[in-house]
Amino acid sequence: MIIILKNGQSPEQINELHDYLKQYNVKISEIQGEQTTIWGLVGDTTKIDIATIQAKDVVEDIRRVSEPYKIANRKFHPDDTVLEIGGNTVGGGHFNVIAGPCSVESEEQVIAVAKEVKKSGAKFLRGGAFKPRTSPYAFQGLHDEGLKYLLEAKKETGLPIVTEIMSLAHLDLFNDVDVIQVGARNMQNFELLKELGHCDKPILLKRGLANTLEEFLMSAEYIMAGGNTQVIFCERGIRTFETMTRNTLDLSAIPLLKHYSHLPVIVDPSHATGIPWLVEPLSLAAIACGADGLMIEVHNNPKLALCDGAQSLTPAQFDAVMKKVTAQAEFSGKTL
Amino acid sequence: MIIILKNGQSPEQINELHDYLKQYNVKISEIQGEQTTIWGLVGDTTKIDIATIQAKDVVEDIRRVSEPYKIANRKFHPDDTVLEIGGNTVGGGHFNVIAGPCSVESEEQVIAVAKEVKKSGAKFLRGGAFKPRTSPYAFQGLHDEGLKYLLEAKKETGLPIVTEIMSLAHLDLFNDVDVIQVGARNMQNFELLKELGHCDKPILLKRGLANTLEEFLMSAEYIMAGGNTQVIFCERGIRTFETMTRNTLDLSAIPLLKHYSHLPVIVDPSHATGIPWLVEPLSLAAIACGADGLMIEVHNNPKLALCDGAQSLTPAQFDAVMKKVTAQAEFSGKTL
Amino acid sequence: MIIILKNGQSPEQINELHDYLKQYNVKISEIQGEQTTIWGLVGDTTKIDIATIQAKDVVEDIRRVSEPYKIANRKFHPDDTVLEIGGNTVGGGHFNVIAGPCSVESEEQVIAVAKEVKKSGAKFLRGGAFKPRTSPYAFQGLHDEGLKYLLEAKKETGLPIVTEIMSLAHLDLFNDVDVIQVGARNMQNFELLKELGHCDKPILLKRGLANTLEEFLMSAEYIMAGGNTQVIFCERGIRTFETMTRNTLDLSAIPLLKHYSHLPVIVDPSHATGIPWLVEPLSLAAIACGADGLMIEVHNNPKLALCDGAQSLTPAQFDAVMKKVTAQAEFSGKTL
Amino acid sequence: MIIILKNGQSPEQINELHDYLKQYNVKISEIQGEQTTIWGLVGDTTKIDIATIQAKDVVEDIRRVSEPYKIANRKFHPDDTVLEIGGNTVGGGHFNVIAGPCSVESEEQVIAVAKEVKKSGAKFLRGGAFKPRTSPYAFQGLHDEGLKYLLEAKKETGLPIVTEIMSLAHLDLFNDVDVIQVGARNMQNFELLKELGHCDKPILLKRGLANTLEEFLMSAEYIMAGGNTQVIFCERGIRTFETMTRNTLDLSAIPLLKHYSHLPVIVDPSHATGIPWLVEPLSLAAIACGADGLMIEVHNNPKLALCDGAQSLTPAQFDAVMKKVTAQAEFSGKTL
Repeated sequence: MIIILKNGQSPEQINELHDYLKQYNVKISEIQGEQTTIWGLVGDTTKIDIATIQAKDVVEDIRRVSEPYKIANRKFHPDDTVLEIGGNTVGGGHFNVIAGPCSVESEEQVIAVAKEVKKSGAKFLRGGAFKPRTSPYAFQGLHDEGLKYLLEAKKETGLPIVTEIMSLAHLDLFNDVDVIQVGARNMQNFELLKELGHCDKPILLKRGLANTLEEFLMSAEYIMAGGNTQVIFCERGIRTFETMTRNTLDLSAIPLLKHYSHLPVIVDPSHATGIPWLVEPLSLAAIACGADGLMIEVHNNPKLALCDGAQSLTPAQFDAVMKKVTAQAEFSGKTL
Repeated sequence: MIIILKNGQSPEQINELHDYLKQYNVKISEIQGEQTTIWGLVGDTTKIDIATIQAKDVVEDIRRVSEPYKIANRKFHPDDTVLEIGGNTVGGGHFNVIAGPCSVESEEQVIAVAKEVKKSGAKFLRGGAFKPRTSPYAFQGLHDEGLKYLLEAKKETGLPIVTEIMSLAHLDLFNDVDVIQVGARNMQNFELLKELGHCDKPILLKRGLANTLEEFLMSAEYIMAGGNTQVIFCERGIRTFETMTRNTLDLSAIPLLKHYSHLPVIVDPSHATGIPWLVEPLSLAAIACGADGLMIEVHNNPKLALCDGAQSLTPAQFDAVMKKVTAQAEFSGKTL
Repeated sequence: MIIILKNGQSPEQINELHDYLKQYNVKISEIQGEQTTIWGLVGDTTKIDIATIQAKDVVEDIRRVSEPYKIANRKFHPDDTVLEIGGNTVGGGHFNVIAGPCSVESEEQVIAVAKEVKKSGAKFLRGGAFKPRTSPYAFQGLHDEGLKYLLEAKKETGLPIVTEIMSLAHLDLFNDVDVIQVGARNMQNFELLKELGHCDKPILLKRGLANTLEEFLMSAEYIMAGGNTQVIFCERGIRTFETMTRNTLDLSAIPLLKHYSHLPVIVDPSHATGIPWLVEPLSLAAIACGADGLMIEVHNNPKLALCDGAQSLTPAQFDAVMKKVTAQAEFSGKTL
Repeated sequence: MIIILKNGQSPEQINELHDYLKQYNVKISEIQGEQTTIWGLVGDTTKIDIATIQAKDVVEDIRRVSEPYKIANRKFHPDDTVLEIGGNTVGGGHFNVIAGPCSVESEEQVIAVAKEVKKSGAKFLRGGAFKPRTSPYAFQGLHDEGLKYLLEAKKETGLPIVTEIMSLAHLDLFNDVDVIQVGARNMQNFELLKELGHCDKPILLKRGLANTLEEFLMSAEYIMAGGNTQVIFCERGIRTFETMTRNTLDLSAIPLLKHYSHLPVIVDPSHATGIPWLVEPLSLAAIACGADGLMIEVHNNPKLALCDGAQSLTPAQFDAVMKKVTAQAEFSGKTL
């Protein structure tokens, strides 16, 4: 950590800051400049709050040299995290596709889609029972009924289930779910993250619409700090000025997250763009730059979908995409 | 609502869409173009899901003509919402300043700050007992202890309390709080919004970091749809590429929200910029373009603040700002 | 300037960097950490290229401590720049409104508008003869004919002229213009900036749609480095995800630019929002937080305007806005 | 084009708008709603200015149904544009890599790099003689001297030259250049685009930092409207809130541009990210989603580069990247 001091400050103020910092057991070295003095702090600075230092009169500027996350940090855990989930292996060179409808609408629908996506090579079934919707008047999901249908579909097909949690109050309902998804709008719902840190299920953590990669890493750290180290990142597009796509898919996130962290990284091209014919090219691109998996929306009747049908593939379209996805994953050296 | 159809589609597909729409009791009129056909839908289209329509093969594009919010919409409620809270009047030309520390740190601190800000003219005391922090290693607030100190400060000064809720699980603890704040990161925590719709307390709703004004209006609609119509908007900056300020304060939001809605709108210049000396000029600007109030961070010792001290004013600085704020509010015709 | 070195590098590499830096006559001090070494550079580092240093294998990170602009920097020129233009004083507490049509359409139009805006209190006439248009099929301006009409209007009313240059090739045509405007899309047209640095006319420099304030300051520095120190900043909105306004007006820019620089700062609320009824509230807000002036679009027949009519005020609307603008400017202590 | 009229307007105003529109030879059909009336305009609406219509009192809203570009539009030119440049074929399934230093620094440097990149499989040599730099104090390029060295390198290696133009005034110097590059900051320098529309050289058009894909297509249309239909798009990252990369590479742009236009699309991963080790993964991703080529920065001594060395690959690194790039391009069915 580097602190830049203003010149011309009283020795008392400088001593006050010096004492404040010493309680963190860091070593402080000084460089004397013409207009500024620089302090270099050596030691564990994770617990030092940048804003608190910045508020002090004597401080011109401050910056971290090392990353503020530890358990999620590849520096301290050089090997890839590999998760075993319902018979599938995630991370460490393995490749998995999660597919299914945006929202669970009926038992028939979700079982039908599950069978189709399994046939095409999906390894997990996704489906929303609790749906975050911008409008209070839009369909909000079937809730516990929806979870029941997903588990029926799992019984029929053997596919492990990935589904989104929207509130701590529902946690008990997720006992038989295989992977709990945290949606983009909850990436910084810190109370939820903390609670998920105490459960023993893999968490699929989606990137927030306006969250930096460092914040994304810190949200994983929140969960991991509670003891649950089974976190999967999911890049799903960020909000920019571009209006032709719903969001801007940030594929640089894949190599960057894999560089700074040891956790698996998957990509959701369906939500990122909102345009079904972009799912194929962006899926291939995601694999080519290192994604450990994909999450793709498939609906057996997108035209009647109660939610976000616009971006869903039909089972036939999904099957065609999967052929190319499989070939690219093999080409990129992934284990299928 | 306007739907643009692709040409060359089968009559069956077009009939299917026609039938689907008729269930919403809307009248459909048609314009025949060379390459496209346009349908105009007349009636209540609030419940029609745009994405569902868009997914249909025959549809080229779709757009709303009328706003998707109703209870928050000034069209249906032309008069300003005016709230009576703990002896203060909010909205309808009245002007209020909410002030206090970012986080409650001790009983002494919060009472001392409360007395100071009251003396300078603040009408509400703010202070965080539950703190959303990017890092799990940062100070997370004093929780119920913090709420207790805030209520002590209220007893001492008479200032009603504004404080942030971070989880439904804590709702019972907020019984004696005067205004419940929903933070920027929870603006689209829909389960929380729904529950707050059933309580009878005013809600201070902060704009999310990457949320449009229409989404902001829809989040107010979420609360109001549950029966609680006491909502106050708070603009606090949005995330952009600019790095000189923490966020970019969007003051256009004030006249726009007041145009489309009847709810009060306040501004938080402290969090918007993260720079204490910008609080004064941006407070004056906010008043000049119509803000119903301000939310300002004040700490009796910003240099030792456990959280976000960087942006806090000292009581003396706050007093100086309040003199100018009061003069501008009077000049702008506000009732103080 | 601070350079963070990676540890475990060969002494040769470190010496190479040391020698490279010494040629800039800076003093280098060193702090030895556990994982990194920090160098503090003292002296004039303006000419050192950050990217070049960053490319070196031994360098982990690098950052400036002091601003990269000098002539535009208030640190070196504490007093406000005050410009005398065609009988008006700009900067240093003086307040000026520039008004007129988006584009010059005919001699009658521009003279009529000039007379109207003068009557309402405008001090400068604006009008575009060269128009930057997104579409090649849109009206591109009357070019030299347009400039001629502007000068006619100046002769009739005495109002000095502000008009936009789009290409170096046209510079000769601007001999009799009072203020040359550089549009948002040309803020980083460096060849144009350099050339304008050699002319002796005031330059109104508009902020680019996606340019940071530091880049804005650097573009002013480009002009000033050529010898022309008559630069006026114009904030006109930046591009964000918000779609309700054309751009997001960043009013924080006013106090920030005035803090870091000594140059006058004006605001263009017409282009920032694209919505005529937002011109008044945002004009008042701009004045309240320190703007030295405003630039407002006025058209005698917005409904028939050949360009951007949507955001223009009628002369009557402008007159009403000016009454409030004048009162606010007086209240804010400006000299009118 | 669809126009939504406000209700309760006088017949005169409505007739005035009707007459205004008729001059464009469009057919107007009407849908009568409860609160609004909708007009559908059929015919060539390219020349109708949206802002002008929007300014009219009777108009609530307006939107285009068809794209505002024609010559660049795939609808009217379904076949891929294929360009023959200096012995290379660009577009139509062919794949080309453009490589070289950010800026030309000496004859030796550029010839050395040219030989290296040719050996590794590059088909074009890039190098900047005119450099857009944020700071007036940074190295601005060798200008005509730099162009001379590039042509020397072409003579030595046979590689055609791609180099950036920054001002119309330099156009004569580009006579022997093979491809003229328009940089991101000049994407909407309309005077430059118009002039390039009259020359008979291929133009490599880079996307602006904050420009939408529709604006990008319109800038190509500017050039093509002048008669020069040899335009190549280059996606190079857009400006977002993310700070870990210099810009956010928008790979969705590739399939979208190729869908809406028939022009070739290449990607510059070096400038997009500013991080050399991201060049490989993002190059592969770009190819996987359809890019017609890549533009990669290579410097024989990045550590001493006068400009943007940080993002350059060494010839050895480039050679390694090219092996993977070639394999991916073959896998994706490109002609090499």
